[in-house]
Amino acid sequence: MIEAKLLDELRDIVGEENVLTTPEELLCYSYDSTVLQHLPEIVVLPRTTAEVIATVKVAHREKMPLVPRGAGTNLAGGTIPIRGGIVLSLTRMTDILEIDTINMVAVVQPGVVTGKLQAQAAKQGLYYPPDPASLKVTTIGGNVGMNAGGPHALKYGVTSDYVMGLQVVLPSGEVIRTGGKAIKNVTGYNLTQLYVGSEGTLGVITEITLRLIPQPETSGSVLAAFADLDDAAILVNRILQSGVTPAVIEIMDQMTIQTVDDYLQSGLPREAAALLLIQMDGVQAAVDQELGVVAQLCRDNKATMVEVAKTPGEEATLWKARQSISPSLTRVRPNKLGEDISVPREAIPQVVRRVQEISRQRDLPIVIFGHISDGNLHPNILFDQSDPEEMERVEAASGDIFEIATSVGGTLSGEHGIGLLKQKYLKLDLPDGTVEVMRTIKRALDPDNIMNPGKIFPDS
Amino acid sequence: MIEAKLLDELRDIVGEENVLTTPEELLCYSYDSTVLQHLPEIVVLPRTTAEVIATVKVAHREKMPLVPRGAGTNLAGGTIPIRGGIVLSLTRMTDILEIDTINMVAVVQPGVVTGKLQAQAAKQGLYYPPDPASLKVTTIGGNVGMNAGGPHALKYGVTSDYVMGLQVVLPSGEVIRTGGKAIKNVTGYNLTQLYVGSEGTLGVITEITLRLIPQPETSGSVLAAFADLDDAAILVNRILQSGVTPAVIEIMDQMTIQTVDDYLQSGLPREAAALLLIQMDGVQAAVDQELGVVAQLCRDNKATMVEVAKTPGEEATLWKARQSISPSLTRVRPNKLGEDISVPREAIPQVVRRVQEISRQRDLPIVIFGHISDGNLHPNILFDQSDPEEMERVEAASGDIFEIATSVGGTLSGEHGIGLLKQKYLKLDLPDGTVEVMRTIKRALDPDNIMNPGKIFPDS
Repeated sequence: MIEAKLLDELRDIVGEENVLTTPEELLCYSYDSTVLQHLPEIVVLPRTTAEVIATVKVAHREKMPLVPRGAGTNLAGGTIPIRGGIVLSLTRMTDILEIDTINMVAVVQPGVVTGKLQAQAAKQGLYYPPDPASLKVTTIGGNVGMNAGGPHALKYGVTSDYVMGLQVVLPSGEVIRTGGKAIKNVTGYNLTQLYVGSEGTLGVITEITLRLIPQPETSGSVLAAFADLDDAAILVNRILQSGVTPAVIEIMDQMTIQTVDDYLQSGLPREAAALLLIQMDGVQAAVDQELGVVAQLCRDNKATMVEVAKTPGEEATLWKARQSISPSLTRVRPNKLGEDISVPREAIPQVVRRVQEISRQRDLPIVIFGHISDGNLHPNILFDQSDPEEMERVEAASGDIFEIATSVGGTLSGEHGIGLLKQKYLKLDLPDGTVEVMRTIKRALDPDNIMNPGKIFPDS
Repeated sequence: MIEAKLLDELRDIVGEENVLTTPEELLCYSYDSTVLQHLPEIVVLPRTTAEVIATVKVAHREKMPLVPRGAGTNLAGGTIPIRGGIVLSLTRMTDILEIDTINMVAVVQPGVVTGKLQAQAAKQGLYYPPDPASLKVTTIGGNVGMNAGGPHALKYGVTSDYVMGLQVVLPSGEVIRTGGKAIKNVTGYNLTQLYVGSEGTLGVITEITLRLIPQPETSGSVLAAFADLDDAAILVNRILQSGVTPAVIEIMDQMTIQTVDDYLQSGLPREAAALLLIQMDGVQAAVDQELGVVAQLCRDNKATMVEVAKTPGEEATLWKARQSISPSLTRVRPNKLGEDISVPREAIPQVVRRVQEISRQRDLPIVIFGHISDGNLHPNILFDQSDPEEMERVEAASGDIFEIATSVGGTLSGEHGIGLLKQKYLKLDLPDGTVEVMRTIKRALDPDNIMNPGKIFPDS
């Protein structure tokens, strides 16, 4: 239990209305988008960097766990306050401080909703490409903390590719700045990229300088169905080798197609082994040429169906299936566990087949979709949390999936992070020595282990 | 002096012919591409990771300085063995271990010459974009150590954007692996990017996994002259805002134009304030459209001359001036100091004018050229090293240049690193707290300070 004196101190820092302590309030900050849960002792909602600094200094003095958190859309348990302490919710630091159209840079507070930044940038003809599925609620701070990705990563990269600089409050309460508005910067160690994806275990990010790019002039999409997974995988390589770099190449496996078709009743090719959705963007002449090249490559590569969308309306129709995956899944089972394994592109057909086998062996529906062109797949295990026996099989299936991903040279996580859910599998992925270097950095930069303790590393 | 016993031990590890000790041999490893110099006590040339490990273990046991080094094209004094000890030359580890055309990845040893990797990749239709000026001699290991850039960074990024994974021998001699062939990877801290650009101060990189991309189908260039610097800077923004992302936009200021024209006698517009060289690449239809857009934007933006090159032969002619900068400079003065400040794009005209002022004030020729679109400029101070009074003015001019770069929100180094030359200016760029975090990491990962001691941080 938190002492009354400490509570008063925190109330003095952020104001009484920004310190939450009732059971109902604490409950709201006890979970994220996984099925895990743990109550914090207190929730603090700062509005300024100065308030963050003062709060961190209290946690530092008291050696209390401090868990920074955005909208809680985390899919790895990264923001669950498993050791109690303070949840530092950055959702009230929502200012877009600057959209600098000349240098093509945005400076934002961590609580800015990613979709809102995209919309504001678009008004100036600029584009912030990272597009996690939770775009409408997720915050930039959370995206930076976990290094979130999205479908557009093939052509445009992930969050880390857009972070040029940070303001970070260290576990001591001292504030530092890394990087800035200069595009190229090799002055000293790359601290910016050390903090990106560090899951709140090294400090609190209070300001983010982001690179923006020009809005692409136009886009167009191709939807193609394949009777054989290998044909879909070969097609992806043929497209990339042709010199065309699509903005997006998404795959849906047969169970995903059928689940979405049950939901939409839109006549998707239920017998197909894979559906690929390929989007090109850029200047009109290039998009037109590339749509032609890609559609022809699909036909040459045994596609059983090829549809081309050239207008926004046509594109919306083609994209409906992809965007309906999430809502369609809850009709099959009440809960889902969405993994985000990332494997060398070549291994995709092998991995998809093995996950389908795991689905049969563990008697659990597993739909597979994701970003085939960068090897980042989302096997989603569907289950009912209230059935303990089923939960055991979910755990086992999860382990099987990480086993196959790492055995082909892939990794546990392409965009969600390790958090709590994947830490016991860390040894499948990384040699002990590599983990020990990470732990050494953690110990050096957070000697009291107050920043989001117990995350990433087992027993930390 | 190195003991005979230690020498025997090193000879046992790498073979007698791979341990250099004569004054003439040591001299060859005492300098890089700066005017700095310091003799090592011994040079070791390993051929395998096992030999690197064994050598590092000896240095670790003896607490001897160990300086990893590639071709020594470093422009910041990063590879000068200022504390003596062992220079570990990785130039005999020259194997391209794999060019994986399906996953579009190369796995190489650190001594592979960058230009050679580019040529080998090109044979498979693949492209490794980072292109430091020293392409024909510089090694990938050196490029990774310093995070080298090049003209193509605007569209394609710098070395760090292509490094997917590393094998690193730690200062203890233990070997670790980071990253791998999976394009997206957020498992644990981003150690890969911590080692990239760490200037050999954290470990020895012995294997590098690099992302390759498809060779662009074609390219074309526009050369345009401007009577006013501001018009050139505004043009760059207009181009980028038009949605066209050129592969390259290079600027040459008036003194550069005149120096090159004296050398080439090719009728360059000597009265122009700036010459811009703009290259587009991609599929034919896009390049054709973009060449038209860019040439028209040049004309609309007060260009006094616009030339368009559509064939390789025409492009070679247009590029001749840019490629002749380096040889032309040595005709003006025997020595040069090439800086690589990186500033927010908007500040370019202001910075160029201020550097021209510094040139007059310090009575030293300073040519300015570089990568205008990403704000990375190369003011090259020309001087005669044998004149001590002139050397003092060079030092002062250098300080003035870093002063203006950092005062506009830029950084000391966009692609060469800090090494020895820039460390006394580090405080202009980075707050003390930021440098202290870097030092904390260095101390944690190299507690005996054997790895390239005295680099990056003053008095380290």
